[in-house]
Amino acid sequence: MNSTPHLHLSGCRFVAVYHLSGPRDEALARAEDICLEQTVEYPEDLIPRQDIRDQILGRVTSFEPLDDERFEARIEFPIETAGDELPQLLNVLFGNISIKPGYRLMGFELPQELLARFRGPRFGRSGLRDLLGAYDRPLLSTAIKPMGLSPAELAEYARQFALGGIDLIKDDHGLADQPFCRFEERVQLISDAVRQANHETGLNCIYAPNITAPVDQIVDRARFARRAGAGGYLVSPGLVGFDTMRLVADDDQAALPILCHPAFMGSFTMSPTGGIGHGALYGQICRLAGADVVIFPNYGGRFSFSEEECRDIIRGTECRMGDLRPIFPSPAGGMKVDRVAELCRFYGNESVLLIGGDLHRHGPNLAENCRRFAELVRENSTPAGNASKDR
Amino acid sequence: MNSTPHLHLSGCRFVAVYHLSGPRDEALARAEDICLEQTVEYPEDLIPRQDIRDQILGRVTSFEPLDDERFEARIEFPIETAGDELPQLLNVLFGNISIKPGYRLMGFELPQELLARFRGPRFGRSGLRDLLGAYDRPLLSTAIKPMGLSPAELAEYARQFALGGIDLIKDDHGLADQPFCRFEERVQLISDAVRQANHETGLNCIYAPNITAPVDQIVDRARFARRAGAGGYLVSPGLVGFDTMRLVADDDQAALPILCHPAFMGSFTMSPTGGIGHGALYGQICRLAGADVVIFPNYGGRFSFSEEECRDIIRGTECRMGDLRPIFPSPAGGMKVDRVAELCRFYGNESVLLIGGDLHRHGPNLAENCRRFAELVRENSTPAGNASKDR
Repeated sequence: MNSTPHLHLSGCRFVAVYHLSGPRDEALARAEDICLEQTVEYPEDLIPRQDIRDQILGRVTSFEPLDDERFEARIEFPIETAGDELPQLLNVLFGNISIKPGYRLMGFELPQELLARFRGPRFGRSGLRDLLGAYDRPLLSTAIKPMGLSPAELAEYARQFALGGIDLIKDDHGLADQPFCRFEERVQLISDAVRQANHETGLNCIYAPNITAPVDQIVDRARFARRAGAGGYLVSPGLVGFDTMRLVADDDQAALPILCHPAFMGSFTMSPTGGIGHGALYGQICRLAGADVVIFPNYGGRFSFSEEECRDIIRGTECRMGDLRPIFPSPAGGMKVDRVAELCRFYGNESVLLIGGDLHRHGPNLAENCRRFAELVRENSTPAGNASKDR
Repeated sequence: MNSTPHLHLSGCRFVAVYHLSGPRDEALARAEDICLEQTVEYPEDLIPRQDIRDQILGRVTSFEPLDDERFEARIEFPIETAGDELPQLLNVLFGNISIKPGYRLMGFELPQELLARFRGPRFGRSGLRDLLGAYDRPLLSTAIKPMGLSPAELAEYARQFALGGIDLIKDDHGLADQPFCRFEERVQLISDAVRQANHETGLNCIYAPNITAPVDQIVDRARFARRAGAGGYLVSPGLVGFDTMRLVADDDQAALPILCHPAFMGSFTMSPTGGIGHGALYGQICRLAGADVVIFPNYGGRFSFSEEECRDIIRGTECRMGDLRPIFPSPAGGMKVDRVAELCRFYGNESVLLIGGDLHRHGPNLAENCRRFAELVRENSTPAGNASKDR
């Protein structure tokens, strides 16, 4: 075999942080395994060239106990292994080891050389606030549903939400392009309704239709929605891939804020010792893939996230990632109007509070129910929530 | 609210099968929750129209104990809820409930009305055998690696594999488009090397480059590879989304067999009581999304699947799904030449045996090592493996 070629990598590396299970020797073996499995995926003794060993393999740069059965390892990889591509970056971070129990990806730190290849969120917190003209308070959000209503019925709900002062109205993530509720008709009617309501209120309520769709149609749906007057998009990257959300975020003809929905993503965080940590997934990965708002199940609702896991998501939405904008955490999932004070205390102003069904539970006047929600948020807004202060 | 509109759904429904955790009453509550959560995602008492209750909601059609703490529920959904779209079908099957512990998707049955919207595998088992001219035995597969070798070095490996009688040579899934190994150069050199070897042997060895890439580039990479002479593709749907693999499978200018790699998919099966069952994921979903061969970690290797889980994958690759072709299960992950007899007994002829690094461990003559692998497979081939017989 000709062994003349030599690698000339930059030496620039990115860092991934893992929690590894087992007693010390097993966890350390897992850390060393990551260095091979996530790069060459090849027995170390058979690697045919020394420069591959020296330059391509991952390197454990720290290994510390969290308790007797869990260790935190920081591992560096050459930026060249990720190419310029989000799917390949995810592959190096967690491709094959996703299949092995005892490895959990907790976060990552990318140098500017690698971050420069990703635009990230087009709007982020400040850009979205500017579009809405809403400052110094949490943003208000709701979903139009249930599936089965006609586009005209959904548009009437949206009109009332906009009249009531909701900032962000999203489609239910189950509204796609169904025979009983076609995408184009729905998006046009609801966009018109929200525009008319904004004219009455003087506010800038944004309607974000669900554009989650076959990947060869999703950009077309985004562009259609923008032309119809929509102000944002709902995308479920669990259903279409993180890079498909990135594609929408990068499209200059789409160019509206993206709300990221967690559908089909639950398995990533389900196992406490495998999978991906909440902050790494809902915060860092979704942010890198272009989300401006990341929706996740709030603690204490009908889902199962803990306060600590929700804190970790907040961390991921705002931790330093080069020039990538911080994005909004948006707790959701069975949230109730009578919990607004508590939510404001926990999340603080830099959040999007999403209340769905419960807005329908307080009498038939939806706009009035929204005004009550808005009033409670104004009364309870607090610059920094406990979730941030505690950290 | 105007309640004039009425739903006129076909009444045609598809079935999803779940394993639900908990004592009987809790598990039954989970089954009933699925009916709402996966359709209207709305409190039942607030649903504004009776026809939505009657026609849109999921229905539990059976609920049986597996043991004291686990129940199997069959739930029917109207085909209209899925539209004509794979992402939305996945959303109805497992979108929001993916985030709730205690719900595991084990399989699904789609009526012809819904299946007709998906092409599925373009080749399947019989189509791939016809391309290779290889019948009545397991197919032989290997990967070219490690990352860090130049395209010319990888091409030399590929040439030797092809000379040695390997049927399917795939890129390592970590080879993307990196500065030290560019996609186009690699694909061209390796395609040329395999073509030349085929000319010498008279065989039809297929080279499947890794086309996993940003979603807006993946179809272009597939078409480039085909023009360069590649005979198949490697796609990791965990990294780019199942619908992106479907897009490649459906592209008439790409039109080559797809090998599906499990990178980043491990979290789906990691939790025993949540996530997706092995057969539903690696078998049914990957098949619906157009894979012709599905690669997964064999039992007893460095990953963690059990024999029973591998059997479940086989089931998913060949169970009745309307006219969708059966596809090949391809056990991989630390497989060794000296286990070939056992693998043949377990998997039988309808499999693709993928041995990577171990082919390099038996002396420097790679082609000779492959011939030994091929010889062992011929000696041990058996029409139906134990894995199928046992079921």
